[in-house]
Amino acid sequence: MLQTKGYAVQDAASGFASFDFERRDLGANDVLIEIQFCGVCHSDIHQARDEWGGSIYPMVPGHEIVGRVARTGADVSKFKEGDFAGVGCFVDSCGDCENCRQDVEQFCLVHCSQTYNSTEMDKKTPTFGGYSSQIVVDENYALKISDTENLAAVAPLLCAGITTYSPLRRFNVREGQKVGIVGLGGLGHMGVKLAASMGAEVTVFSTSPSKEQDAKNLGAHNFVVSKEPENMKPLKGKFDFILDCVSANHDLAVYLNLLKFNGAMVLVGAPEKPAEVNAFSLISNNRTLAGSGIGGIAETQEMLDYCAEKGITSDIEIIQIQDIEKAYERTIKSDVRYRFVINMQSLGQV
Amino acid sequence: MLQTKGYAVQDAASGFASFDFERRDLGANDVLIEIQFCGVCHSDIHQARDEWGGSIYPMVPGHEIVGRVARTGADVSKFKEGDFAGVGCFVDSCGDCENCRQDVEQFCLVHCSQTYNSTEMDKKTPTFGGYSSQIVVDENYALKISDTENLAAVAPLLCAGITTYSPLRRFNVREGQKVGIVGLGGLGHMGVKLAASMGAEVTVFSTSPSKEQDAKNLGAHNFVVSKEPENMKPLKGKFDFILDCVSANHDLAVYLNLLKFNGAMVLVGAPEKPAEVNAFSLISNNRTLAGSGIGGIAETQEMLDYCAEKGITSDIEIIQIQDIEKAYERTIKSDVRYRFVINMQSLGQV
Repeated sequence: MLQTKGYAVQDAASGFASFDFERRDLGANDVLIEIQFCGVCHSDIHQARDEWGGSIYPMVPGHEIVGRVARTGADVSKFKEGDFAGVGCFVDSCGDCENCRQDVEQFCLVHCSQTYNSTEMDKKTPTFGGYSSQIVVDENYALKISDTENLAAVAPLLCAGITTYSPLRRFNVREGQKVGIVGLGGLGHMGVKLAASMGAEVTVFSTSPSKEQDAKNLGAHNFVVSKEPENMKPLKGKFDFILDCVSANHDLAVYLNLLKFNGAMVLVGAPEKPAEVNAFSLISNNRTLAGSGIGGIAETQEMLDYCAEKGITSDIEIIQIQDIEKAYERTIKSDVRYRFVINMQSLGQV
Repeated sequence: MLQTKGYAVQDAASGFASFDFERRDLGANDVLIEIQFCGVCHSDIHQARDEWGGSIYPMVPGHEIVGRVARTGADVSKFKEGDFAGVGCFVDSCGDCENCRQDVEQFCLVHCSQTYNSTEMDKKTPTFGGYSSQIVVDENYALKISDTENLAAVAPLLCAGITTYSPLRRFNVREGQKVGIVGLGGLGHMGVKLAASMGAEVTVFSTSPSKEQDAKNLGAHNFVVSKEPENMKPLKGKFDFILDCVSANHDLAVYLNLLKFNGAMVLVGAPEKPAEVNAFSLISNNRTLAGSGIGGIAETQEMLDYCAEKGITSDIEIIQIQDIEKAYERTIKSDVRYRFVINMQSLGQV
């Protein structure tokens, strides 16, 4: 077994502390990745604090992992020692069910082994995430990183990037379309960059007037303070697609009404309480409300390659692992532009 | 002006009574249709009783209209005297906006002139519906009826038929798919017939165990009493498409959870209260919740031709106009299998 350093919470109320644990020995198809950076996703906080229920402790969060391949199993062909590699939200799946065969392993019908707060395919062995020194993963669940210049800023693509890329592709967002991005946080700022890169006219909806300049810098063409009803009225029926990146409870009808005929709004944030949806808002203009959950390995690789080609990364603030609690508090207050990324070398200083 | 007999309510609380009114003289593009049958839609009741607000009185409801062309304007080319013709939920639109040009006149961005409880394109002159002896309509907003043998049973296709046909086509329902129809009423029974005719394996979800035999007779392959949770559990993730035809308030998550990856549920019923939607129900399996409102003229004609070819009509109970109040009460109690259709000849006996 491989002795591994990590940072963990022991229960929903305790803070983070050093945690030594073991990774499995390399199997024939496994790669060992020395973790260099790990992004901080809002869902790390929800799970560390058991806000969604069912959390497994001790928990080492982190599913936006990038690093270098330190060792490869006997049958590994996709990676060689020294390659840059990433790990996203899951590390295994059955590979054989209807969904795995459609390349949506995140919806595996047998068991999607999440990167942390989950179990391996035996449904017993707990998984530990990227707030750690190294990870062992089947090569088929690791991603190739070609943008090696901006490794820290690539890390958030593994969750925030694919979460926004996948629905934009699924609904074929393209030049000539009007796209709304609701909420300018970790997800929203990636949504803006990606939608703009696909040629759409991008409007950011935010409750924070102070984010206007940022939105424009990220590539948005328009900025609307959504809490003022008079700002929203003239936009009724104008949008082809809206990506709703807000995790706080909010009124969906306000945004649904902005969709034109056959327009679609996709939820990628997950508010705790159910949202109210008026059937008339959907029936009028044959509107669509959909959800989207990360993406499969093939699409995640496609997204990483697309971002490398287009020069798209996340806007980040690099922190030391010792500052994780502070980073959580600032994330909750939306006081981050736009993603914290942990420099995992700081683990050595613990 | 053309003296016309009708049946109207004078306000939300009054009952129906005879009502004489005038239809406009035929314009160059108009046809005069002698109404033979008119279906009774649940929305007639909502509007007659002002349950959606904003009702215009006196009101002559009815938007499932079939009859014979009695006279044609000078420039009419689509119809000749003696032809059978139908009128659905709307009688005019601008014809020139983005939506009209996409053949979805029901969502006209200028004004969709509904068949009743609405106004003509001048936004002043009230429109009166099919509980009447005749109607004048622009030929471009009238439908050709080829199944002249079953005229009374064709009438409900003009609303219930197109409302269910359009979403089944939009989501490409086809052989090899599992389709759920929620609610076996006027809409649901058409949904069953149409989805089965497209080759899908159809499951009816109903709260009334007594409807099982009917569901099977209509073409359903399976019948599930939806109020029993143990009936629903094994169906999780099994459906490609679900058509929700229920107008009463109900829990959407129960049905969303039945959708497989990329599955869609479409609302065609419009409950008074907003429905609660849990974002996780949509994010899991990348599910879609959409709405659908009737259909444009071209698609309505396509549906009528399709039904004529496949021998599909509505299951109906023919009533006299004098029995309309009783029919409303029975419709509210779901005591109709599956659509009341008024024989408008009974107007002559008023």
